[in-house]
Amino acid sequence: MPNKVFDKVAGNGLISRRHLLEISAAGLGMAASNSVLGADSALKLEIPVWSKVPGPGASGYGSRSTHAEHMQRLAGAPNPIYPGGGSSRSPLQHLQGTITPNSLHFERHHAGIPDINPAEHKLVINGLVRQPLVFSYEELLKYPMVSKIHFLECSGNSGALLRGGNEDGTAQSLHGLVSCAEWTGIPLSTLLDEAGVLREARWVAAVGADAASMGRSVPLSKALDDVLVALYQNGEPVRPEQGYPIRLFCPGWEGNISVKWLTQLKLTREPAQFRDETSKYTDTMPDRSSYQFTFPMGTKSLITSPSGQMALNSQGLYKVTGIAWSGSGSIRRVEVSADGGRSWADALIESDQFEKALARFSIPWDWNGGDAVLQSRATDSQGNVQPTRDAVIADRGTINRYHNPCIQSWGVNRAGEVSNVYI
Amino acid sequence: MPNKVFDKVAGNGLISRRHLLEISAAGLGMAASNSVLGADSALKLEIPVWSKVPGPGASGYGSRSTHAEHMQRLAGAPNPIYPGGGSSRSPLQHLQGTITPNSLHFERHHAGIPDINPAEHKLVINGLVRQPLVFSYEELLKYPMVSKIHFLECSGNSGALLRGGNEDGTAQSLHGLVSCAEWTGIPLSTLLDEAGVLREARWVAAVGADAASMGRSVPLSKALDDVLVALYQNGEPVRPEQGYPIRLFCPGWEGNISVKWLTQLKLTREPAQFRDETSKYTDTMPDRSSYQFTFPMGTKSLITSPSGQMALNSQGLYKVTGIAWSGSGSIRRVEVSADGGRSWADALIESDQFEKALARFSIPWDWNGGDAVLQSRATDSQGNVQPTRDAVIADRGTINRYHNPCIQSWGVNRAGEVSNVYI
Repeated sequence: MPNKVFDKVAGNGLISRRHLLEISAAGLGMAASNSVLGADSALKLEIPVWSKVPGPGASGYGSRSTHAEHMQRLAGAPNPIYPGGGSSRSPLQHLQGTITPNSLHFERHHAGIPDINPAEHKLVINGLVRQPLVFSYEELLKYPMVSKIHFLECSGNSGALLRGGNEDGTAQSLHGLVSCAEWTGIPLSTLLDEAGVLREARWVAAVGADAASMGRSVPLSKALDDVLVALYQNGEPVRPEQGYPIRLFCPGWEGNISVKWLTQLKLTREPAQFRDETSKYTDTMPDRSSYQFTFPMGTKSLITSPSGQMALNSQGLYKVTGIAWSGSGSIRRVEVSADGGRSWADALIESDQFEKALARFSIPWDWNGGDAVLQSRATDSQGNVQPTRDAVIADRGTINRYHNPCIQSWGVNRAGEVSNVYI
Repeated sequence: MPNKVFDKVAGNGLISRRHLLEISAAGLGMAASNSVLGADSALKLEIPVWSKVPGPGASGYGSRSTHAEHMQRLAGAPNPIYPGGGSSRSPLQHLQGTITPNSLHFERHHAGIPDINPAEHKLVINGLVRQPLVFSYEELLKYPMVSKIHFLECSGNSGALLRGGNEDGTAQSLHGLVSCAEWTGIPLSTLLDEAGVLREARWVAAVGADAASMGRSVPLSKALDDVLVALYQNGEPVRPEQGYPIRLFCPGWEGNISVKWLTQLKLTREPAQFRDETSKYTDTMPDRSSYQFTFPMGTKSLITSPSGQMALNSQGLYKVTGIAWSGSGSIRRVEVSADGGRSWADALIESDQFEKALARFSIPWDWNGGDAVLQSRATDSQGNVQPTRDAVIADRGTINRYHNPCIQSWGVNRAGEVSNVYI
């Protein structure tokens, strides 16, 4: 393998994607086999026990392999002065494709998960409307819906990296507050049409039924664009952690504004100035002024493998893979660098490229056993290019911990250890 | 409501989709509310207990609402002379959108679910190849993959309806052998390129590691087109029930050929004539001759609500919704009839229309309290139109129980009871 000549596409070992096809064969090359269809070469494979004895049959509700149970969300320790508050992060380094299974979708709660009986839950639309309305869950189920695949990302995702410090984390611990699902719901514009929005209305104040009464103000223009009153997630009712029975879903915007356990939408002239759009979820600049209502998430990508706390066992060919997304459109391009940004090569985009959804990319890398810094850089359909960490800090300082889309640098040392580095 | 004038789009109550927006408001019209943002009208809503007390916080692996636990697959009773054999059916009448959650994806097993240790599992490629190959699971994970959303349907789905009889079933019991997921895997063409297919090869014999050694022959042309060696399903490793750690996935073709627990791919001149392509999964015509290798699934749709064994409580507006799919392309159009096929109206397609994937449709229906027969009819991107049951029977008789794409008729009687009918 070390003698092999690869077509280079960028510095420090990034090679043409057709070489990725040689990863296994290179380490393998042995002949086969003695299996069901008869021996035709040297290697004899033993028949494993699971091929000899029938297994259990079909069931009502399935579960994953016991060999996959290490794939867990990473939840913070409970905080007694903030009951039910906190988050859990998706195991991005273990997932592939673009959909996040519902059981592994990231969470963020401000007073834990309410145990709502849908038969007793109401959604109120009031304020500056011609006709205030109250909907039961059963009534909402009768409306026409749309189904769209979208990512959801907490605005605090990746925030720790702006402050610097010795962040020895994983893809999950540093960036796991992003997930992706098919969301099915009623266009909010449909329900607002029915209530009759008055001319002076400019905002929609959305409130959840959790004990935090989590509230956020949504500009009317967004509410009338692509916002959903979501009832289903990947085909099944929205999970309790995600807002059962009803959540607001604002595609491409910071996760917090997709209010869970939705119980009220009030049309107003001005934003409501809820606790979670004043004391939190505002972006404080170096002069201590704060931006408020910075809704769209950035143009972003992340290498999920190799990533923090992984180890490369030997020099040679690796698949570099990851996810990319944009709050402003679809992913048009992902580039990868193995030399800390001095040279870049285009990755293969392995998935469809839906609007405001995760995309999956990969590129082969021939690690020569030396130091390397792996980075990825996304470009979206609006031409937005993912910025470097230096550019984000120069623009917005290091006090702010929201809306950090910056390029992640994974250092690889000569021992093959992968870790977060700042360059 | 009975006095309301709707724009009719077809006979017996099918109306313009804009009236679907009036479903709830019509039965409602009351003012609101006394909630977090203050009273501004007559109705006082009580604050529920779940809004007063913090709930449990984030966790490592989530689960669905206890209020959704009635959504179960329908599994047949175990058969002692066929250990592990049988199937379970997706609860189509409870799902929305297009993705099936992995825990509710239909199953079909021929000797139960093998408990495979991925570290000991091998995939062999041999037969008419330049270089036989053996892959471990870890090696396969390094290959570039593609992620695509596709339906999977058992060729026996809906088969009971061809035989007639008094089939008083649900959408699930009659048609639940179809599901849809994002499948991520290695293009089979990649692995075959690496092995080097010899000129005389025409078929790929695929064998599973279950105790049935389930095998099927795949034409080489399909293998080189869009077949995947699938490793992930909706982002997580393929479930044991679906072939963990590896399954073949042949988009648009009968489910049985997407061999689970894949352990061998042998290149051959002729089909292998496995048990499951001779004694089963062949289509027997009235003259007792059988078609073999009838792979693509048809152009098909199904109304999932209202559907068999549901009940309409009162006359008035309902949402008719369902799913549509084609093994030969994407869904271009879905029409609905409420008068047993005498008149048809176009339904709204609520989802994206991906190739060989489920699509979701809906249309509003004003039930006048009389007898009705609800039907849906799909047209795909190739111009294929879903046939009537009479047309399928005239073409292929009633011995065959595979590949029935026929239009489902749901009768509604004056008591509002919905049931399967033959017309």
